[in-house]
Amino acid sequence: MPSLADTLNHLLPIIENDLRSILKPRPTYPSLFYRILQYHMGWVDENGNPCEPREGKRIRPILTLLVSQAVCGDYKLARPAASAVELIHNFSLLHDDIQDGSPLRHNRPAAWKIWGMQQGINAGDAMFALAHLAIPRLATSDANPAILNSLLQILDETCLELTRGQHLDMKFENENGIGVKDYLDMIAGKTATLISAAAQMGALAAGADASTSEHYRAFGENLGLAFQVLDDVLDIWGDPDLTGKEAAVDIRDRKKSLPVLYGLEQNPSLRALYDDPAEMDDQRVKVAIDLLDNVGARSYAEELAREYSRKTIEHLEAASPQGDAGESLYKLVDMLLQRNY
Amino acid sequence: MPSLADTLNHLLPIIENDLRSILKPRPTYPSLFYRILQYHMGWVDENGNPCEPREGKRIRPILTLLVSQAVCGDYKLARPAASAVELIHNFSLLHDDIQDGSPLRHNRPAAWKIWGMQQGINAGDAMFALAHLAIPRLATSDANPAILNSLLQILDETCLELTRGQHLDMKFENENGIGVKDYLDMIAGKTATLISAAAQMGALAAGADASTSEHYRAFGENLGLAFQVLDDVLDIWGDPDLTGKEAAVDIRDRKKSLPVLYGLEQNPSLRALYDDPAEMDDQRVKVAIDLLDNVGARSYAEELAREYSRKTIEHLEAASPQGDAGESLYKLVDMLLQRNY
Repeated sequence: MPSLADTLNHLLPIIENDLRSILKPRPTYPSLFYRILQYHMGWVDENGNPCEPREGKRIRPILTLLVSQAVCGDYKLARPAASAVELIHNFSLLHDDIQDGSPLRHNRPAAWKIWGMQQGINAGDAMFALAHLAIPRLATSDANPAILNSLLQILDETCLELTRGQHLDMKFENENGIGVKDYLDMIAGKTATLISAAAQMGALAAGADASTSEHYRAFGENLGLAFQVLDDVLDIWGDPDLTGKEAAVDIRDRKKSLPVLYGLEQNPSLRALYDDPAEMDDQRVKVAIDLLDNVGARSYAEELAREYSRKTIEHLEAASPQGDAGESLYKLVDMLLQRNY
Repeated sequence: MPSLADTLNHLLPIIENDLRSILKPRPTYPSLFYRILQYHMGWVDENGNPCEPREGKRIRPILTLLVSQAVCGDYKLARPAASAVELIHNFSLLHDDIQDGSPLRHNRPAAWKIWGMQQGINAGDAMFALAHLAIPRLATSDANPAILNSLLQILDETCLELTRGQHLDMKFENENGIGVKDYLDMIAGKTATLISAAAQMGALAAGADASTSEHYRAFGENLGLAFQVLDDVLDIWGDPDLTGKEAAVDIRDRKKSLPVLYGLEQNPSLRALYDDPAEMDDQRVKVAIDLLDNVGARSYAEELAREYSRKTIEHLEAASPQGDAGESLYKLVDMLLQRNY
């Protein structure tokens, strides 16, 4: 049985190849049009010259392909859906960076910082259209049109959910009184919906029945929720040497992550600290973490992550994934959720 | 035979009804989410209260329905496509207003001026997703899935072309040396592509063969080009009492419209006037129009509009539209292209 690393090394070039074929410049388009998209994908520098790829982990399309293979023994039917999901993810990053005013993406200037907000919005819109086009353009000629329709409908319902999550995220920034429940509703749209679509679309592309597809959808949804909650925990309590990120960035930025929202609900002192406009220096970050520890925010969040992880595995088992790909799905969940911290 | 006004009065409420059903708030969504979309469509005020509708003319979905009826005698099959096209138009307006910094839309504050750039981008993204969802959500259960796929693929190729046009439009603003050819390339993407898709999708939805669909596509494309070029002419030489717009706004804003680009190519004095940073007051606008008249910019543009109009009719005849709807298409072209000026 191949290791998870072998499996990823096999699938990643297939995904990259498909993504590059969808984002291949067309002769009737101005060269800058596709260059912005290729830059965002991490393939070229801002002058359009190939660079050391700085690609994302492509977790979503990997999931799509593995689920397809675990359903029908083959990942090929799911290649159009895998690219579509990854390109939708990148559409949302292009617009997110503008909406958040984030200057950096993968340690380089974000596309909008180089080409301006206007072209940044347009690049996101182009990526959105290309994500949809991945399905008809990559589909084989004998693909079942009813299945292609289902895939596109799920993709668009997912995009709508993404905008619901993004709407809430931006709305919450300007509001006090946001609670844990609001936060979970927001990440369901912003994070979990696309991971659940990745898994569900893999199943549907492979011809899975309604019940199996639904288990894969719920598997992806819980995986996304567990992953996001763990990410929030790791930001505060993770070992920067292991996570590769600076510690407690969320607290420094006063981000309302899950443990923080729980803490704000439980502890008025934390609320006072967060409402104080003074800079969140090291000393104040330490006080905030102590206050979070005092109210048990860490164990609350870890318990929630465990609950989502449990449901993730439950739905994966109910979907009864087959063969090596099935094993790889379990290993992928382990890699994503049982991280050292 | 019904008058064009009767036909429009019959079709418009059907279109509005479909659009409203797609943009009907879902209970799981925050109320502001759909309110921004409904405000942009002209149905509610910024507090979400119904207002005197300030809707657009809905030319694109009207075209889609009329073409369908002219092909197969019925417009019903094309209702999903008609809504999709109109919502894509509105997605592009939401983002255009942000990209252009336009504060007004239909004499009210643009959505982004009320709810901010971030929510404005997100509202456009949501409209984009909903435009796509109009097709599966409004399709009847016996709709042919292969046709639905073709409609979606055309919709997305059209969206990509729209972003190409928008990319060029924004790029040209910062460039000198743009010529008539660049401009025609830009409006092909920005204006004509969606009108051509509106007609083509109407034909395909009605089951037209490839040759007929292609004639309707080319009909819509030339109609869009003729309309845009005439719009440019009317801005400068139209009677404000007839156009309902202030005269020569394009020149005041130093917009590179078709007659202006032709003039800049032909007349160095106009170039000097345009490059001079002094305010374009009434006196200077008059000088610019005189310079345009001297080089024959008006007759050049009118000749081009006539050429596109001729091709519009040629392709419409080749498509041989049937019945009252066919007659209405000719009348609609007359209304759009043979305007008094």
